[in-house]
Order: sequence, then structure tokens, then C-alpha cells
Amino acid sequence: MATTGRVTLPIEQGMGDQLPGLLSRLGADAVRNSDGTWLPEITPQLGVKVYETYFPARGNQEFALAHLDARPRFYLMSERVTAPSAEPLAIDIMKGYYTLQVEPDQGDYQRWWEVIDRTTGEVVPVEGWSVTGEGSDVTVTIAEPVAFHVYTVSFLSWQVWDSTQMYNYTTNNWENDPTRVREIGYDVRHPEAWEFMMSSLRTWCEERPEVNVVRFTTFFYHFTLVFNDLGKEKYVDWFGYSASVSPLAMDAFEAEYGYKLRAEDFIDEGYYNNSFRVPTKVFRDWIDFQSRFVCARVKELVDIVHEFDKEALMFLGDTWMGTEPYGKYFAETGMDGVVGSVGSAATCRMISDIPGVKYTEGRFLPYFFPDVFKPGGDPLGEANESWLQARRAISRKPLDRIGYGGYLSLAVQFPDFMARIEQIANEFRSIHEVGHGHLAERSTIRVGVLNAWGELRKWQTHMVAHALWYKQIYSYLGVLESLAGLPFDLQFVSFEDAINGRLDDLDVVLNVGAAGTAFSGGDTWLDPELQGVLRRFVGNGGGLIGIGEPTAVLKGGAYFQLSDVLGVDKELGFSQSSDRYPVETPEHFITADLKGALDVGEGAGDIFATTRDTAILRLQNRSVELAANQAGEGRGVYIAGLPYSHDNARLLHRAIYWAADREADFDHQWIPSNPGVEVAVFEQAGKALVMNNLTGAASTTLTGRTSGLEGDGELRELQLDLEPMESRWIDLA
Amino acid sequence: MATTGRVTLPIEQGMGDQLPGLLSRLGADAVRNSDGTWLPEITPQLGVKVYETYFPARGNQEFALAHLDARPRFYLMSERVTAPSAEPLAIDIMKGYYTLQVEPDQGDYQRWWEVIDRTTGEVVPVEGWSVTGEGSDVTVTIAEPVAFHVYTVSFLSWQVWDSTQMYNYTTNNWENDPTRVREIGYDVRHPEAWEFMMSSLRTWCEERPEVNVVRFTTFFYHFTLVFNDLGKEKYVDWFGYSASVSPLAMDAFEAEYGYKLRAEDFIDEGYYNNSFRVPTKVFRDWIDFQSRFVCARVKELVDIVHEFDKEALMFLGDTWMGTEPYGKYFAETGMDGVVGSVGSAATCRMISDIPGVKYTEGRFLPYFFPDVFKPGGDPLGEANESWLQARRAISRKPLDRIGYGGYLSLAVQFPDFMARIEQIANEFRSIHEVGHGHLAERSTIRVGVLNAWGELRKWQTHMVAHALWYKQIYSYLGVLESLAGLPFDLQFVSFEDAINGRLDDLDVVLNVGAAGTAFSGGDTWLDPELQGVLRRFVGNGGGLIGIGEPTAVLKGGAYFQLSDVLGVDKELGFSQSSDRYPVETPEHFITADLKGALDVGEGAGDIFATTRDTAILRLQNRSVELAANQAGEGRGVYIAGLPYSHDNARLLHRAIYWAADREADFDHQWIPSNPGVEVAVFEQAGKALVMNNLTGAASTTLTGRTSGLEGDGELRELQLDLEPMESRWIDLA
Ligand SMILES: [Mg+2]
Ligand SMILES: [Mg+2]
Ligand SMILES: [Mg+2]
Repeated sequence: MATTGRVTLPIEQGMGDQLPGLLSRLGADAVRNSDGTWLPEITPQLGVKVYETYFPARGNQEFALAHLDARPRFYLMSERVTAPSAEPLAIDIMKGYYTLQVEPDQGDYQRWWEVIDRTTGEVVPVEGWSVTGEGSDVTVTIAEPVAFHVYTVSFLSWQVWDSTQMYNYTTNNWENDPTRVREIGYDVRHPEAWEFMMSSLRTWCEERPEVNVVRFTTFFYHFTLVFNDLGKEKYVDWFGYSASVSPLAMDAFEAEYGYKLRAEDFIDEGYYNNSFRVPTKVFRDWIDFQSRFVCARVKELVDIVHEFDKEALMFLGDTWMGTEPYGKYFAETGMDGVVGSVGSAATCRMISDIPGVKYTEGRFLPYFFPDVFKPGGDPLGEANESWLQARRAISRKPLDRIGYGGYLSLAVQFPDFMARIEQIANEFRSIHEVGHGHLAERSTIRVGVLNAWGELRKWQTHMVAHALWYKQIYSYLGVLESLAGLPFDLQFVSFEDAINGRLDDLDVVLNVGAAGTAFSGGDTWLDPELQGVLRRFVGNGGGLIGIGEPTAVLKGGAYFQLSDVLGVDKELGFSQSSDRYPVETPEHFITADLKGALDVGEGAGDIFATTRDTAILRLQNRSVELAANQAGEGRGVYIAGLPYSHDNARLLHRAIYWAADREADFDHQWIPSNPGVEVAVFEQAGKALVMNNLTGAASTTLTGRTSGLEGDGELRELQLDLEPMESRWIDLA
Repeated sequence: MATTGRVTLPIEQGMGDQLPGLLSRLGADAVRNSDGTWLPEITPQLGVKVYETYFPARGNQEFALAHLDARPRFYLMSERVTAPSAEPLAIDIMKGYYTLQVEPDQGDYQRWWEVIDRTTGEVVPVEGWSVTGEGSDVTVTIAEPVAFHVYTVSFLSWQVWDSTQMYNYTTNNWENDPTRVREIGYDVRHPEAWEFMMSSLRTWCEERPEVNVVRFTTFFYHFTLVFNDLGKEKYVDWFGYSASVSPLAMDAFEAEYGYKLRAEDFIDEGYYNNSFRVPTKVFRDWIDFQSRFVCARVKELVDIVHEFDKEALMFLGDTWMGTEPYGKYFAETGMDGVVGSVGSAATCRMISDIPGVKYTEGRFLPYFFPDVFKPGGDPLGEANESWLQARRAISRKPLDRIGYGGYLSLAVQFPDFMARIEQIANEFRSIHEVGHGHLAERSTIRVGVLNAWGELRKWQTHMVAHALWYKQIYSYLGVLESLAGLPFDLQFVSFEDAINGRLDDLDVVLNVGAAGTAFSGGDTWLDPELQGVLRRFVGNGGGLIGIGEPTAVLKGGAYFQLSDVLGVDKELGFSQSSDRYPVETPEHFITADLKGALDVGEGAGDIFATTRDTAILRLQNRSVELAANQAGEGRGVYIAGLPYSHDNARLLHRAIYWAADREADFDHQWIPSNPGVEVAVFEQAGKALVMNNLTGAASTTLTGRTSGLEGDGELRELQLDLEPMESRWIDLA
């Protein structure tokens, strides 16, 4: 079934003859350049859409050097320094930072800098410390420290080098390339910079009639990315706003919100409001303030693009602070599309679920770069892995387009890879074609993920750097990864939303994460109103699934504040005196497809059942790893961790049905007996897509109704033998 | 080297002829009866001291039944009950309790009971709840609960059955023995009970001229031991004071201390002030109050014993609340000796280090009971294990006596066992004889264990039930077990002591335990003064060794409040954005004898180095398990956990030398190359005891000075081949 469209291919100079054939083979209807490649002259004759990359806030070094006061800034904290005595304490604030990236901004430092006694939390008055030195050699001296207290200096600094360009520069050894400079950015708040951004874009559009799509990479404020004194990454937060600050912005904030910002509002004890921190009101205000401003300015750039009859496409990442696509103001930008890197099913859904744009596009892996496309590299394997992950997500909520990046000239040297992405393109298009614009059917069980961020960070929970593995997140990310390919209508609900009645729209709520984090909720759970809302929800028949350390904060004799609903709590050492006689119930609806051991990843420590009524489904080394609890009319399920696996996705699928008290419906919903296989039902088309997620062949039985997922048609049972990674359309009737 | 004395043997009726021979073989100079055995008529003719067991606060059922108002009480908490609505909420307060043990005491319940909204922490006013029912069927009804809040009832209850006797009764199936009754205790606070206790003891002494030693088991208030509705242990805290309460005592307390006690002062959110909780001021006051009272009454009983020219010996355990032997008032009781069960080196030191008594005695394992002394049982193996553990402790600080318990008639059926305990008795006596009353030499490095309890709970940290294994304690108990056999002068120092200057007497401080517990310190570490005292100590050249989650409480950007000293902190999820580049330093003084992997038991989660200067000695799964940090003039060492093993004891030995900056002295202190071997040096005797702690043969080299542990004599090097478990005296010169 060869089809065309929905695919973007990177092209480059010197491949002119091959391009028409390649485009046709892949059915590509758009081309793009990449970092370090230029579109060939033949481009306008290819008969496809043309994308070109655009950087609004960097790239013109001449402007940047002429307006050093327009450079963006960071809020940074010095090392923690212990005063060894009451003698004056000198703190080298740049210790550990990279002088090529960071330079303290001494302008009005008494207003913007802060010295804090971290032992007491008290601010040292500005009269109590002084600044000496200049450039990147700056010392703060505390005149009369308290002996043995720990001090830090929070300081505003210039971004001397754009973080993304710096990353590319150091990663690709551009120091050996005399044509490369260290690019300096400019802050959109600066009036001249803003004027320059608008006029530059206009000129750029004028000069490029052949370009159909301006691919913004991205806009104004980089996520927090700071390097250390050895030029290696020191701090990375894909959601960080520490690089969005400036006195201009903070003054404007004060004028609007009526209160002064402090350095500590950004420094946050050195945690920099990373997304694991339960967000403060001030930080939420700042996100709102900057997002509103950034989106308004983005809209003006998009308007310019539209003036030239081009489309505006935003790359999701890099300089994206303020344009978070699930934010309140993003839709107002008028952006035509969003493109992002697909590293998993969850990141795929993060893109494909974005509301208010005409199209979404996923840039697939691998990037056509020499690190993979080399002798001994395995581009085919990486393409397969990426596709198997993304396909789960696409079958539930398709991207509108897919694409690749890098050097096409490298990829064509791997014919089996090219053949495979041709298949993938066709497989991808078939989902659109069979679906005819309808989504795959979803269970009527409405599921919500409850945390401090809610909708703003949809599909973006438990992430540090974009799509990278961290030890403390993978056991929770697996929940999102599982859900990204399961047939549920998923909402992301904040605690505030919950209090405002949003749970009324849900059947099952998930609270997932480590104690104290924004994803579990930390102190927020001390609010009796929040607890009450959840208990009422469960009291009315709802289901609560807690994973890791849900609702955890020590108070009143409980650590999991909803231990009464979940039927379990965590032992911190205080209740060891209570004897426990745990009995495992190995056979249960939730574990019916789990043949081997349950993999809870890092687990959650020592979990115990709070009553004899709690069904302990898995007990390991005296700790409960999986439990099911009838709590009045509703139900609680506890899982110690859920790294992604086929088995764990199936376990979660079942846990949701159990929590919703809907076990009876489960078996007739086209559930494959083999957890390595998943099915997406397209009822309007009378078809279902059966996907073998395994890299080996898979056999499975499949039972469902001729009428679709939850209809009342006849029951059918199929026996299927699937090739490795195969997806197959079957007729429901 | 056959010697005599210092050994107590249990004897029983029907063995008359064998006894003189057995006593002589073992060199026993004392005999005792056991639970359920009686001394034979020949006893006075054996020419040895005679012990007999005595229970002051139970045993006379006639008195008990005639004075039911003298029964001791418990403070207990109901289950946590969630109000499903605002309708009246009925709580069955006895749910989960054993009606044969517990009966609510409804006397003046409005004064002594408390209903608490655990969701808010607020007390429900007495007008807001009512009590119905009687006996053990009692309901508390909250008239107007807040829907979805969690409630508990704290209630005073009678102890209907003595906890120890109940344990023996149910364990030995005495319900089938018509001669057994369920014994009821009586509270020494009750004036008639006290009069009765004194007169009974006097009569008892009068009637037993043949008894030399009254073995009190123990006195008045049992540690907290509560059974569940199935008659199984529900709650056990060997240090618990929940069973020491009564209105009389609480009123007396109020009169003396000037403030009213509340139920919550004992209930403590359901944690019952167990020894892992950082003790409140009120609870400390209560311990002080009861200990003073109990010790005063004990003194009166001891005086009676002395009147009859008998000795008073206290069994350390059971009904021992208020007579904690490291407490302030214990020495004033005039007690002659303390006997306790030896379950490890640490419990051995817990007994042998008791100050102010004429002698200490360890009751060794195995007890001569049919569970071990049966076909297929391994009494010999248990005796060896017990002895290897105890010998380490005895070589540092000997017990004055050892003994056994149970049925001698069983033991004699195992001749190899009898031969072995004959050897053990001789080995034990040799330590006294060679030492001539001098202790083995100790390092001049003064070591302190710092926690909330200090001296009061010397050798008693991290214990739930006496000497039982718990998952959350073994990784810390290993520290005590190691120290019990290492040549250090060990002090137990409270945080208050530290603030009051006690660290001046120390060279190395250990802080050991799980976050939030009394042993780590919890919120206590928020006190800048405490932090300052420790930093000053290290600043002056001291060493701090943190094990597990030392100084842990989240504040000001750190979790380990002394992370600057330790060089490590724990990742709770908030600082994942900070990149880390840990490099292991596998070769170090501390790990020089560690051939295999480091066993940290349960570990402590994700530990990271806070600076590049921290030497990471062991890194496992991205987490630091062992680190060494130079902190100014002093040093910090971090260990993630230290379950007891020969290797870990050696590691701690070295860590202390390193922390004290005394590595140079280490090698010449008669340190065996084989960590399974230890040496105790008796300088005055010019001898050293070399102990093979292994159950197999061991070869080792041994280097030391002819002048003893830290003298300046000549260096000698020996090569020793030791038999399994052998101890051997060598001449130093
Ligand atoms: Mg955790
Ligand atoms: Mg812990
Ligand atoms: Mg020193």
C-alpha cells in the first residue's frame, strides 16, 4: 500500500539527481535543511514544501556584539561555602562555572543579588557584604559571617554564549573550524533587540521566496543549561526558567503583579524551581507572566511569516521557555505547526496532543549523523526501536507528519535503512488513511494524572533533560510511556483543578512520583480540602492508583496521606514496632497477564499494608510492590514503580480497569492474550490495527466485539501469528 | 587451663546425683531455677550460690483478683477511621486488640481519653463524642465528624493479662494445662499493691534461707507488648513506656512538673514514642519521673533482700521500664547485679558496661529448651555462634559471670555440647585471669556515638524488640556490633550533651541511622547551634562518620545538614538537574583490607558527592556507598550502611583511624592481616588474646609493638595459624 505525503526529508547540496527518486520512494511532500546543511538549488523544482530553520534570538553576531547589554541573563547560585570562623568570608562566586558562558552582571547588584545564610535561611543585609573584581573574576565577601554557618551568593549573570550553540560547538569541536564563532544571543525584552528581530525576520522572508515553512528553533529564552568550569554540562532542566530573567522583566513583573521579585524566587535554595519542585505561587506567576509576554511577541513574528504567505513551525525545545504548547497563551500565537523530537511514545503524544495548531510533526530517530551512520553503526535497529515506541502513540493519537533530520547523503549509504523508513512512512500513512480522521476508539473509563503541574506539563512529567534516562525517573516515566499507547482518554489535572471540581470528569486518578516532588505533591497533601476531594471521589466509586510515593508527606501518623484509600503506607522507621503479617494474593485480575516477576524499577522502599483487607498482590523482600484495596464504594491500587515494559503496560491497563470497577468489560475489548501485542480499534472504519511491539514473531489470541471496543456486537475470537514488529489491519466484523 | 567460678548453671529436680560432677566440670559456682523448674532438695548441699526467680508485680492471683483497680494500664490508640460523611461516626476502639489482654478503662474517660482529627491534628472536644458499651465492647461515636477526615480514639485501658506471662502462656500452650491461670499484674503506684509487694517479698525471703540471690524478673512496668485480636503480637517496643501509665501517676506527674499530661503525650500519633522517634520533652520528663519513682521503690525491695543477707539481681528485660541501667537513678537502687540475655556482642556490652553494680552476668544461648535440644537440633552450633559473638565483646569489657538457662536434663543428653560449654567457661575465665582485673588496652582515639538518646540507651540503639532482626535496623546495628569488639573507648552522646561541650572529650563522632529517627536526629539538626558544634569539632581536627542518613533533614538546599563535612548528600529528586561525574577511588586506607564488594545492607538510596574533592571509595549503581572527605582540619567519612561482618568491622576500625587522622598508627597496633581475626592486648600482663572469629581455620600475620597497643616498644611480626574459633594467648615481648 504505497501512499504519499505527511513526510519531511532533510536534503542537502550535491544530491540533486537522486532527490526526486528518493522523495517519491518515501512519499515525502516536504524537505528541510539541517544544522550545517544548505538547501540545494534544485529545491524549488522538487514540487514539495520547503522548510528552513530560523533562529530569532541569535545568529547575528554583529548585532549581538554591538548590543552587549541586550544579552540574556541567568540567575545562578554560588557553591555552598561554610564559614570556618567569624572572620570575613570570601566567596568566589564563579567557582564551578564556565567563564566562556557565564559572566556576573554587577549592574545594581545590591538590588538583584542576594547573600543567604543557608543554615538559618536568613538573608544577609546588603550592608553586610561587598563585591570585588570584574569580568568573570568576582568575589563576594561577607564581613561578619556567623562561624560554621553555610552561605551562598545568588547572582545575576550575563549569558556570554548561547547555550544551544555552545552545546553544538563543543560537541562538534567547532573550535577547529575558523568559520564558527561563539554566538551570543539577544533578549527580546531589549527594545532594540526586538526591533532587530522583527526587521531581520522580514528581510529573511523577503529573501527566501522558495521557503514555505519557517522552522523556528525556537524563540527567546533557553531552558536552563549551564556548563561547568571544565566546559561540561553542569546543570540542565528542560523546563527551567532561570535563563529568562532580566531587570527589565522583573521590573515589569513588579509593576503588573504588585510585588517585588527576589533572587531567591529563582534560585530556590539551588534547586532553581526545577519541575520536581512543588511550584511556588511566585514561580507560577513568573511562568504566566513570561508566557504571556513571549507568546505575544511570537504572535508578532508569526504574523510577519504569514504576511509572506509562509507557515510558522515551532521546534519544541531549546529556546522554548514561554511557549510551552499546553500553556494558556500558546494557541494565541497563531503558530501553524509544532515539530519535536520523538524519543518515546510519551514524547510522541506530547507533540501529537498539542491543541490549537494545524499540524504536528515528529522528527524521528535516528538523526542522519555520522555517530550512527558509520560502519558498525546500527541505524536500522535505531529506526525500528524508535518506530515501535512511536507507533503505539501514533495509533492512539497520530502525529500529522513525520520527518527526519541530518545528512541524507549519509543515510542513502544504508539501503536497508532507506527501505525500512519507506515501510515506516507507509505504515504511518495507513493509520491516517484507514482512520479517515477518526481517532482510535477509547475506553469510556476517563483517566487523570494528578500532580502539581496538571495540563501545563501534559506528557512532560518526571523529565529532567529531554527524553534522557535518569535513575530517579524511569520507574515513573514508565507510567506515561504505558499510557501513551493505551486506549484511554487521559487528562492531566493539577491539585488546584482537583479542588475546583475537575475530578468529576474522571473515573480513575493516578498520583505518581517520589515523595516531596511536584508529581507526588509533597506538602500540598497536607491540605484537608485536597484530601477530602480525593476521598469523596473514591467514596463515589472512583479509583485511585498510587505509584511510588503517592500522597506522601509525614503527618498525623501517616506518610501516604491517603493510605486509607491505597491500603498501604511506607515504613520510615517509626512504625517498625507494629507487627505485620503480610499474606500475598498472587492471583488477581490485575496480575492475570503477568507471567514473571513484577519489575518495579527502583521501587519505593518499605511498603506495608495498613489493614488486613488490603490485597497484597506482590510482596518482595518483606515490602509490598503491588496492592489492591476496596475503599468503600471506590478502589485503591498501589504500585511501587512502573518502568516501561510490555508487561507493565498491560498491568497498568488492567489496574485501571480494576480501579474503575470495570473488570467485567475488560476481556471483550480486543485485548491480545500476548502483552507484547496491542490493538487500536477504528470503529467507524470497522477495522482494528494489531501491532506486534516485539522485535520477534508473536502469536496471540484476540477476543472482541464486531461492533468495536465497547459496543454490543458479537464476540469474535481470532488467532494471529505476527511477523516481527508487524502491524496488521483486521476487519472487526 | 581448667579453672573455676564465674558460671551459673540451671539445675532441676531429679538430677541429684549428677549435679556435683557437672558443677565441677564446668567450674560453676552458682545454680538457678528456670521458668517451670524447681530447685532440687540437694541444692543447699552443693556448696554454690543459689539464685531464685522472683516476680514482684504478678504471681499472686488472689491479691490481683481482689484488687482489680490495681491492675496496670496501657495507653492505646484505635484504628484510623475515615469518616465517609458528616453523619455520626462510630469507632469500635477495640478493633484489632485482644480482649483477653485489653479492656478499656472508662474511669473519667473525658479526662484521659482523646479523640483526634488526624487530618488536621485537632482534638475533638469532649462534648463532641460519646462512649457506649462496656467491658471490651466499647464504641466511641463522634457526633459531627468532618466528612473525609481521619479520626482516632486514644484510650486508657486495663492490662487484663500480664504481657510476659501471656507470651509464655500462649507460646507454650498452657491453655492445655489446668494448673495455669492467666496472671494479672498489679501496679506499684497502687498503695495496697505496694504494701503487698513489700510484705510478700519479706515473707518469700524468710521462707527461703537457702536462696542467696533474688533474681528479679523484673519489677513493675512491662515494655510495650500488645497482642492482636488473633492473639498474636501486635505491637512490641522493648523501650516502650505505654504500659507504665495510670491516672495516679499522671496526676502525680502534673503535681510535680506543673503541667497536665494528655493522652497524645503517650499515643504520639500511634507511634507511642518508640525509641526511633526523636523524643519529646514531655516523654523525656515522663521517663525521668517514672525512673525516679521506680528506682526508689526498687531500692526499698533491694533493702529487704539485703536485710536477709541475700543479693538482688535484676534481669534486664521484661518489666524493666524505669530501671534502665544507664539511667540516672539506677545506681541508687543498690542492686547487686544485672543479668541479661546475650544475643550479640552489642547486647553483651550492654550488660558488661553497666556501671554501679557489683557484677554483671550474661545468659548465653542456646537456652536449654526442647526447640533446640532435640534430635536434629544444633545446640553445639548455636553455642559456637553465640560464643564467637560474645567473645569479641568480652575481650574488650568482660562480663563478670556467664550462665545458661533452661533444663539441664536436656543439655546433658548432648555430650559434645556439654564439652564445648566446658571449654567456653574456661576460655571465659582465662580472660579474667590473664587480665588480672585490667581491661584490654584501648586506642587513644576517643569515639562517640551521637544521637537523641545518648548515654541512657548505651548499646541500645536501633533496637525494636530485644535482639531481633528487623529489615530497617540491621544495616545500622552492624555499627554497634562492630564497635562492641573493637578497641575503642566508646561514649554515647546526646545532642544535648554535644551542645553542652561533650564533644571536647572525643576525637571521632558517629551519627548513624535513618532520616528522621532519634538515631540520625531528624529535626534536631535544624538547630544551628548543634550544626555549629559539630562543624567546630571537625574544624578543630575531629572526625565525623555518618552512616545511612546522618544529619538528614531537608532545609536550605541540603538534606544531610552536614553535607559539607561528609562530602556527600542524598538525592531526593530535587537536584537531579545537577550533572554529576563521580570517579571512584578504589584504593584507600579505609578499604585496604576489603577484598570483595562492600556490603551496605539496605543502603541509603541515592547518595552523591557534593564536591569533586570528596573521595568516592565505593560507587554502586550510580550511588556513593563509601566516601572520605577532608573538611578543613578535620575529616568526614560516609558509609551507606554497615551490617555486621568481619570485613565491615575492619572497615569501621580503619574508618575511625582515618577520621582521626591517625592512619600512621594503625599498622603497628597488633592488627591481624586477616579481618576474621581480632586481637585484644593486655599490656600489664604482657600478653595479647588472638581470636579467630571464623568457624574455619585462619592464617594471619600480626604486627605490633612489644610494649602493647600504642607504646614505643620494638616491632614484632608474627605468623599465626589458628584452629577454627581458636583463641590463643601470645606473649607481646
Ligand atoms: Mg525516594
Ligand atoms: Mg530510609
Ligand atoms: Mg585531625
